[in-house]
Parts: sequence; C-alpha cells; structure tokens
Amino acid sequence: MDPISIIKKKQIGYPLSEEEINFFLNSFIEDKIPDYQMSALLMSIYFVGMDFSEIYYLTDVFVNSGKKLDFTKNFSPLIDKHSTGGVGDKVSLILAPLVSSCGVYVPMLSGRGLGHTGGTLDKLESIRGYNVNLTFSEMKNILSECGYFISGATEEIVPADKKIYELRDVTATVSSIPLIVSSILSKKIAEGIKSLVMDVKCGSGSFIKNLSDAKKLSNYLIEVSKKFGLKTVCVISNMDAPLGKYVGNSLEVFEAIEILKGNLKNEVYELVLKLGAYMLLLGGISRTFEKGMKKLENSISSGRAFDTFLKNIKAQGGDVNLNIQISSDFVLVKAKESGFLKYIDASLLGKSLLYLGGGRFKKGDIIDHSVGIEVLKREGEEVKTGDELFRVFYSSKSNLKEALDFINKSFKIVNSFDFKNDLIFEVMGE
Amino acid sequence: MDPISIIKKKQIGYPLSEEEINFFLNSFIEDKIPDYQMSALLMSIYFVGMDFSEIYYLTDVFVNSGKKLDFTKNFSPLIDKHSTGGVGDKVSLILAPLVSSCGVYVPMLSGRGLGHTGGTLDKLESIRGYNVNLTFSEMKNILSECGYFISGATEEIVPADKKIYELRDVTATVSSIPLIVSSILSKKIAEGIKSLVMDVKCGSGSFIKNLSDAKKLSNYLIEVSKKFGLKTVCVISNMDAPLGKYVGNSLEVFEAIEILKGNLKNEVYELVLKLGAYMLLLGGISRTFEKGMKKLENSISSGRAFDTFLKNIKAQGGDVNLNIQISSDFVLVKAKESGFLKYIDASLLGKSLLYLGGGRFKKGDIIDHSVGIEVLKREGEEVKTGDELFRVFYSSKSNLKEALDFINKSFKIVNSFDFKNDLIFEVMGE
Repeated sequence: MDPISIIKKKQIGYPLSEEEINFFLNSFIEDKIPDYQMSALLMSIYFVGMDFSEIYYLTDVFVNSGKKLDFTKNFSPLIDKHSTGGVGDKVSLILAPLVSSCGVYVPMLSGRGLGHTGGTLDKLESIRGYNVNLTFSEMKNILSECGYFISGATEEIVPADKKIYELRDVTATVSSIPLIVSSILSKKIAEGIKSLVMDVKCGSGSFIKNLSDAKKLSNYLIEVSKKFGLKTVCVISNMDAPLGKYVGNSLEVFEAIEILKGNLKNEVYELVLKLGAYMLLLGGISRTFEKGMKKLENSISSGRAFDTFLKNIKAQGGDVNLNIQISSDFVLVKAKESGFLKYIDASLLGKSLLYLGGGRFKKGDIIDHSVGIEVLKREGEEVKTGDELFRVFYSSKSNLKEALDFINKSFKIVNSFDFKNDLIFEVMGE
Repeated sequence: MDPISIIKKKQIGYPLSEEEINFFLNSFIEDKIPDYQMSALLMSIYFVGMDFSEIYYLTDVFVNSGKKLDFTKNFSPLIDKHSTGGVGDKVSLILAPLVSSCGVYVPMLSGRGLGHTGGTLDKLESIRGYNVNLTFSEMKNILSECGYFISGATEEIVPADKKIYELRDVTATVSSIPLIVSSILSKKIAEGIKSLVMDVKCGSGSFIKNLSDAKKLSNYLIEVSKKFGLKTVCVISNMDAPLGKYVGNSLEVFEAIEILKGNLKNEVYELVLKLGAYMLLLGGISRTFEKGMKKLENSISSGRAFDTFLKNIKAQGGDVNLNIQISSDFVLVKAKESGFLKYIDASLLGKSLLYLGGGRFKKGDIIDHSVGIEVLKREGEEVKTGDELFRVFYSSKSNLKEALDFINKSFKIVNSFDFKNDLIFEVMGE
C-alpha cells in the first residue's frame, strides 16, 4: 500500500477499504505520511465524499488513536447531546443538569469557541473557579455524584481527530460531511455512551445553511452511529436567528440559570425540553415523548434541575454564589424604521461578539466573558422606529464600531412577515 | 489575502484573480505558504479546473520565477516541438536536427524519464560523452553552430514549476489539465520561442487515454499560448501501440539514426515529417504543408539532416562514431496463438522497460541504457502461432520475469482486425 495510490483511488471515486483507511491514517498519526499527502486526501474526500462504511472505518481509527472513557458498567442510561454549533446556543448548560436530575447520566465532552461559534467550555468559565479540565477519575467521581460532568477532552481522547482537525482548519476542508461526521462521532463513541441526541443547527447562524444539507448530515450521523451500536436521534433546529435572549459567555450562563430556575420560558426552554424528552425516551426513563416533556417541566418547577446544576458547579470547583460578571457599559441599537424584524445573517451576531472580545479569532486567544449582546426583539416581531433592538455590552471601545456594524448587517426591517420561524424543522432517527 | 480563503474560493468554483494566484504561488516559492496548503489548492484545481486566464497567470508566475533564454534577437525562426510523452517516442532526436537542417532554430529544453515514460535526455546519454547539462552560453553557441541544442533546463529556468511538480508527483495531482498546461508552457515560454508544435499523445501508452481529453488539453494549450503571443499547433497522435520499432534508450537512438540516415521509413518517419512540416510552415520556411514535407524528405535523402545531427553530437561533446551499447543477451516473446496483434495497454511496455532497468522508478535512479524491447510486429499485423513478437534485450535476469509478464499483458491476439490505427487523429490550431 502506498499513499499516492490511495489518494488517487479516492480522487477517481472509489471507496477506500478498511485496510487502506487504517494504513493511511495510522501512518499519518505516526508521522510517516506527511501533512501534504493527508491534505491531498482530505481535499479528495471533500470533493468525492465517503460512504457509510468508509466513515465508520475513519471514525474507528480516531477512536482507537486514544483512550476511551469506560463508564458503561457503572452508569446507565449513559446518553449525551451534541450540537453542530450556533449563535446563542446555551442548550448544553441547561440540558445536562436537567436530564441528569431525571436519571440520565451525561458524560459531556465539550469544546471551545472558534470564529463566530461559541463554546460550552468558554461559557462555563464565566463561573469563577469552574474547572473544565477534568482528569479521568474526576470525570468518574463527578458523574457519580451529580449525574453529569462537562469537560474538555483530554489529550488522550481521540488525539488523531485533533491532529486531523488542525490540518482541516488550515486547508479549507472543515466543511466536508464525512469529515464532520467522523470528528463528531469519534468523540461521542469515546465517551462510551449508548444513545446520542444531535442538535443539528440549520440556518444563517450555522455552517449548515439549508434543510437538505442538514438532512444529509443527519442521515450520515444516524447511519454511521448504527455501525457502532449507537442509537442517534437528530433534531434539526432553526438557526436563522440567534437562539434565546443573549449572545455572549456570562450572559448566556445568566440566561441558562434563569431557565433552570423556571424564571424564563422562551424558545431555548422549549428546545431544551424537546431534546431532553428524546434523551429520556432513549434512556427508557419515560415511555412516551410527552411523558418525558412533563417529567422535565416538573424537574424545573420543583427546583431539582437547578439543584443538580449547583451540585455540579460545586463538584467542578465553581463559585456556587454564581457571581457572574457582566459589563456595566452598554449601547443600544435602535430600529431606524418600522416593520417586522427579520434576521438575514445570524452568524454576524457571532462575529460581532468576536469583535467585542467575547470570542476567539484564533486558538489560544483570551476571551472577555463579560461582553455580549442582549437580543430585545425576536424574529418576526413588529417594531416601530426608535424601538430598542439590541443592548450591546462592551468593555473597550476599540472594536465597538466594527461590532455594531456586524449587528446592523445581521438584520433587516421588512414590510410584511411571511417567513417561517419554526423552532424545529424535522426529527430524524426516532 | 489569506491562503485559506483562496483555497476556499477555488474549491467552491470561483476563478482566482491574477493577484490571488501571484500571492499564493509567490508565497509558496518563498516558503511562506506550507506544502499542505499548496497541496490543498492543487487538489482543488484538479477537481474544479481553471479558466484560460487563470492558467495564463499561473504560467506567468512560473516563467517569472526564473531566468528566460533570450535568443529571439539572434535566431529566427525560433520554434520548438514538445510531446506529452509516450512509449518508444524518439521523435525529438530526429526532428530537431531535421528541421534545423532546413533553417529552423530549435532551443530544445527536455526532460528525463520517470515511470513508464522515457526521457529524451536519458536517450541521448546513450551516446558516450553527450552533455545534456548545458550552460546558457553553451546553449547559445551550439544553437548558432548547429541550429539546435537539446539540454535539461538549468536550475535557473522555471524553478517554481519544478517545486510544484515535485509536490504534484506525491499528491496525485499530476493529471490535471490546467497544471499540465502551465507546466509545459512555462518551459516553452522561457525558451523565448515564437511558435510551438505539440505532439499530444493519445492512447493506452499515454496519460491521455481518449480523444476527447486530448482535444480538451490541446484547446487549453492553444488558447493559453495565444495569451503569451505564442502560436501553437497541436498534433494529436496515436499512442495505443508503441511508436516505432524499439523501446529503450540505446535502441531508440539506434532507430533515430537509421531514420535520419534514410534507412528506415516507418511510422516514426511519417510522424516526424508531419510535425516537421508544421514547424517549417509556422517558421515561414515553406509556404505549404506539402512543400514542407518535400523539403524534409530531401534533407534526409541528401544526408543534410544526418550531418546536422553529427554536428550537434560533436558540439555537445558526444562520440561521433556513435558506438552505442546494446545488450547482447536477449529472449524472444512468441505468439501462442494465431490471429491479429492488438495492443491493449502500451504503457505496460514502458513498465517492462522499467523492470529491465531502462527506466526510473523514482528520481535519481541510475538507468541501464543497453536494455530494451524490439517490437517485431505492428498493431493489426497478422501473426501465426510461434511467430516472434518481441525481442527483449536484458542485462540481468533479476527482474526479467516481471518484465516479460508486463509485455505479455500489453497485447492480445484477436480473431479479426477491425480497429482504427491512424497515426494522427486530429490537428488543432493550424
């Protein structure tokens, strides 16, 4: 087997065998195949695609490149949720304690933000002291104690995916469905979970812009999961507008807390309940979707969900007083005309956060947790000239103009409201 | 401008601007863009293609990466011929002295063989002492003295093409039309020629397998040449069978000498006359194609062509006694059944030569000039069981079995002969 023939085989459209994928990937991991050949293969995969079996082999190489969490024996049901990433997506912060309070174990390995998409770990670090770098034994103890943990993956988990992802990032091969699927699933398989609920974001604030691509990705996720014995349900949800009231690290934690306390019942609340109901159903905890919804509502109204959250904050070393810093300086963005609010590119709100200092242009950048955007009007809402649309919390005026420019470009005021704004477009793999 | 956006732009199908191509290529040449990003761009070009303007910009970067020959003022007409490469292709060895003897100046920069395709420089080195590494001033002197030289390109000529070619070679991006066109034309533009005749090989012994691809490549060569003010005629010739009587370095030089002396008038002779007639026409030396043919025939029969050849051998330091070494050990491959000879994969004869030691598996391999194959039957010829088909000259028995296996796989004996075996399929750009 030689690398050039394998690249050529993929390039002209043939599926690679298990042996070829193992040889190429393992040689790359061991630095026996150089970056430029891996980059050529990745670009060929971008153009030609991969079938379910090829993605399964690829994912398997990723999983086997490192250690797996082995919590299966002690914790059941062991279920996770993963999102493909959007603007204002604080679902994990709420969902993990909520379903844990109902008996699901959630070993949540999460990521950091890059570009216009935020990261759950960054958001959690708005809570003073909260440790997102857990060791294997800390993960196990906290899972036992609280029913869930949220942590970054250690260097020992799927290191091959990390190495490949870094190359994809600089060779324009991030947006390839087979590569996305293997990257997502490898981390979830390594968690040892038995079921997965995927929140597949679809719209201008996501990297998946249309329903047909979202369905295609979902189908791949479901079929490849099956080969690992992992049951995956994909919930394709709307990302044409920012999700919920806030965009920004501290602000999103604040919103999550309000929802967990039962003080806020907006679309984030709705989405969390629906995703959670699938998790309870998959875990055999509730017999119907509706019963699951009910159970989750009760857990919030009774305070059990918030208690579970506090228990985890304490277990992961965070400040249980939840003294979250939000900048006191803000400017308001007002409507310059009357009509209906329509978001035209929600990703620009993520970009705006980036310029406020609340995101990362490149890996390793320091984040300002206190800045962000309060979304005062929802998509489709009627507004009058002068109405306040956004409150923009900033720490420094240095890039404020750019941040405001992006916000102003993210929406339009239109004369009539005739567009769909469903929260969930479709559920696949039920 | 950043590399990732440029890769992405090409990847999603947009043409790159002159500035983008200059930035990317020049940064790569200066080692500011790494191999893995260039490899990603090359693979995107492989899949998406490039328009005439993009190929022109790319070629121009190659040309400007090094020195140009500047013979235009002193020598006219200055014309070259280039072949896309085939099995048994010794045309350059004959054509250069032949057209020079009729008044065309040919500054021929040639290459070495790799894989199943031979190289003109390797063939010429079968002549003891023949120097294919000429300096600029040697090139000029020999051009003045003999009307032609044949030399490798110095390190100073199109170094960017060399750097890119080495990367294409190991990333399965050799067979991309835009990259082939820019690589071929950059070297020809650097020669300073005013007209070019391209021998575009088409068939199983060439990397271009069908006429439609050959016409596509020819069209690109013609159109991009135009942008440089270079008139290019493409002769699409048959490469389904090996060209002529011999495959192998010394053997091909022997065949070339026989043709130059007027002793052999086979299909190589025919092809040489036709390519040459286009060169005379382009150079304004003959007013019609037919008059050009006549002139070339006369040059061979009068001995002028061979004299020019000998003059060049002497000027480039070669042995004018033409003591060419051909191995005395040979085996014969005979027909196992009766019928008509049909080549099914002529490239396997090139592979066979490789295993005999007459070619290079990788750059830098030492070549045995004395080995090769004598082709005793032409495509379509009737044969009887036991007829001799090939005489295989070898030096060592170590890989002889593999070499014979490749020969046996290269042809079939068929019951009826109904396939076309035109020498020239089409001429474009006249």
